[in-house]
Amino acid sequence: MISEVDILNCFQHLVDAKNDELVCIGSGDDAAVLKLKDNYLVHSLDVSKIGTHFPEHCQPDLIAYRSVAVALSDLAAMGVYPSFLTIGLTSNEKNIQWYKKFTNGLEKIINEFNINLVGGDVTFGETNICVNVFGFTNKNVLSRCDAKVGDLIYITGSLGKARKGLKDWKNKIDSSFVENYFRPKAQIKKGIYISNYANACIDISDGLTKDLGSIVEKSKVGAYIDFNKIPITTDFHDLSYGDDYELCFTAPKKYQDKFNSNEYFLIGEITKGNSLEILKDDKLITLNTEGWDSFNL
Amino acid sequence: MISEVDILNCFQHLVDAKNDELVCIGSGDDAAVLKLKDNYLVHSLDVSKIGTHFPEHCQPDLIAYRSVAVALSDLAAMGVYPSFLTIGLTSNEKNIQWYKKFTNGLEKIINEFNINLVGGDVTFGETNICVNVFGFTNKNVLSRCDAKVGDLIYITGSLGKARKGLKDWKNKIDSSFVENYFRPKAQIKKGIYISNYANACIDISDGLTKDLGSIVEKSKVGAYIDFNKIPITTDFHDLSYGDDYELCFTAPKKYQDKFNSNEYFLIGEITKGNSLEILKDDKLITLNTEGWDSFNL
Repeated sequence: MISEVDILNCFQHLVDAKNDELVCIGSGDDAAVLKLKDNYLVHSLDVSKIGTHFPEHCQPDLIAYRSVAVALSDLAAMGVYPSFLTIGLTSNEKNIQWYKKFTNGLEKIINEFNINLVGGDVTFGETNICVNVFGFTNKNVLSRCDAKVGDLIYITGSLGKARKGLKDWKNKIDSSFVENYFRPKAQIKKGIYISNYANACIDISDGLTKDLGSIVEKSKVGAYIDFNKIPITTDFHDLSYGDDYELCFTAPKKYQDKFNSNEYFLIGEITKGNSLEILKDDKLITLNTEGWDSFNL
Repeated sequence: MISEVDILNCFQHLVDAKNDELVCIGSGDDAAVLKLKDNYLVHSLDVSKIGTHFPEHCQPDLIAYRSVAVALSDLAAMGVYPSFLTIGLTSNEKNIQWYKKFTNGLEKIINEFNINLVGGDVTFGETNICVNVFGFTNKNVLSRCDAKVGDLIYITGSLGKARKGLKDWKNKIDSSFVENYFRPKAQIKKGIYISNYANACIDISDGLTKDLGSIVEKSKVGAYIDFNKIPITTDFHDLSYGDDYELCFTAPKKYQDKFNSNEYFLIGEITKGNSLEILKDDKLITLNTEGWDSFNL
């Protein structure tokens, strides 16, 4: 039987590789003491659960990577660079190799974004990963509630990649989409770039219709998007399927030249009103709150 | 079937009752933006799981209270006042009343300590509560690693109360100890007072032998305690049973008059060496690392 100490030892080298300018008291005490460079702290928490956020029997390094990427995506949507994270890991696994592989996935993503693991907790039970990410504000924090009528609506990449990836993985098809599902890219750099020009931003975790719907609701505006302009992977369902972790944002027309069309896809415009309109095959589909929450043709 | 939105609505009034001086962007966006009064942030994370940290079929308000109290206890042990918290809640419950009762327990403890709920996440699955607590440092942060030879060793209350409480609850005996188990008191005020004088402190979550063992190990000292001086509830086993969330601390002898004997129990002294010695019935029991980790007569 492995102990809590055995598991914590798997993570120790990550915690030891701490940034001394940030961490005054780190792992091994009751709490971590952090010296922040800025008085404004941005924080998000995401729980990833087996069977809901990742399938049973998937590799522990992929579970770790995806759990953290999903949490970082929330900081990307605020235009914030991540600085540190903590993890509450619950797992039923009895084999120490599982934890070592989990740590490998964790190490991959924290090195990719140069962030510090400053603490955590482990316990036995149904696999469940609670990731807390922290960052500092740049001058423009992006929220969901400041979209303005006349803003153009963009997304940072094609939709439905993760949907196809999960399907391929379940069908044992080896495609690049599988990587899109298991290792979504938190769009941190684009989020920070966007924050110079955009009025509102959200990450597409629950599907474009629902997430753009959230901007519409919080900003008290309407939105019009053209299906033909939206880069999709498979079909119309890709609009309401999440897990791609691209960003959806709105920016004034005067900044249109700031967004090159290879990286930022112009899909519509913020309008007066309170509904989300989708033009498809010369038909206009109109959704409001309940519509975009449950929308799936 | 209840939805995530139904559940989040149970918590909304707590998040809305936010402190505007602290919370710039709160619930409902991708992340929370917090304006801190101090550049030093203290953070701890605790995962509480059904079957491990609280029994099956226990009341949701007690689960909420206990999960937060346990996390706050880590800040108490650092001599830090809590400011805000976030919760990652996983639950299989389908009845909205469960979440309302959970919120009641949460509200009770956040009002008791005047802390702000600034965010969280909910998901369905085996009940699991990941609590993140945050506070600001006072001038003396207490760690486990600064105990000095000659320091006196104190604890803030009697041991074994929670052990007896859980036993009584299981036997359907209505005793005050049941409250001790389900609503442990995070010793925040005592922690802050202690921080003016103490060299090292830890909360007794895993049992006095293991937790004082941690001070011994981290401070590279020894410790001697007298069983007859330790306030216990039942028997010698109370020394190795946790869950009381009292504090154990060490302070120089010159401050002995600062700790009145009704509230702070003098149980021993920090010594040279690297072991924990317990005097009981004229016999000296000597424990080292492996000993205190597994100690239970």
